Amino acid sequence: MSERSTIRRNRGYRWDGVSKLEYKTQGSHFDRITRQTLLGGSEEESEGSAVTRYFEIAPGGHSTLERHEHTHMVVVVRGSGSMILGEETHDLRFLDAVYIAPRTFHQFHATGDEPFGFLCVVDRERDRPQLPQDSDLETLRRNPEVARLLKT
Amino acid sequence: MSERSTIRRNRGYRWDGVSKLEYKTQGSHFDRITRQTLLGGSEEESEGSAVTRYFEIAPGGHSTLERHEHTHMVVVVRGSGSMILGEETHDLRFLDAVYIAPRTFHQFHATGDEPFGFLCVVDRERDRPQLPQDSDLETLRRNPEVARLLKT
Repeated sequence: MSERSTIRRNRGYRWDGVSKLEYKTQGSHFDRITRQTLLGGSEEESEGSAVTRYFEIAPGGHSTLERHEHTHMVVVVRGSGSMILGEETHDLRFLDAVYIAPRTFHQFHATGDEPFGFLCVVDRERDRPQLPQDSDLETLRRNPEVARLLKT
Repeated sequence: MSERSTIRRNRGYRWDGVSKLEYKTQGSHFDRITRQTLLGGSEEESEGSAVTRYFEIAPGGHSTLERHEHTHMVVVVRGSGSMILGEETHDLRFLDAVYIAPRTFHQFHATGDEPFGFLCVVDRERDRPQLPQDSDLETLRRNPEVARLLKT
């Protein structure tokens, strides 16, 4: 029986032994968002192919508008928000689940009074995100709902 | 932008387009547990390496005591429970996170008055679970807490 199995207890959306990090270390195309790698992120937990992270966006904040080849599996666990998913917008609430397919632009926004938190599962091996080009933004903004929500 | 990105809304711990299934189709070493594959389970969602499932155990029920080579990343999202993890027992509450390393025996129990629900991420390609041998049970039962909780 392995000694490497681990329980990480939730203490107010912080977990034992898990660092709360900046969402990204570079750029300014995001706002009021933090990242915690809950499970699968260390060398001791690298037998599986995926990593489970927890992102939290403070009211009024948002993630980067981006796309990539790798997929996201997202499950909301705190507060409520909205997202851009391709050319559409969607409101998100507790335990709503989102599959973000390859090459789909996406951006999360905290729209309520409390922080908006979600789990996001990705493959450990993955490509770097791409920011939208001007032509991509033009396409996305054709939908007025997307245009209203979108932040760059 | 892909058309295959999908939002699945939570409606009382059921999700749009997701079937609520028996936990396993064979055996009797589990009780009052259901399985829903939330994300990554279909051919249309197979670009990533992992699958996100939601398991729910009704009060008094339990999962199979088993181990396997693949890992589990578990996050509790409903109710409370207890688990056997290797030779120890642990209580679990909302958003507690568990990394189950390869070859670690584990079993979940719903200990409260409401259903105990958790997300469980696994690799799509994975080995079949193994049940404990008599010698394994003997080892596990050396801890009285494990002996008390364990169901076969």
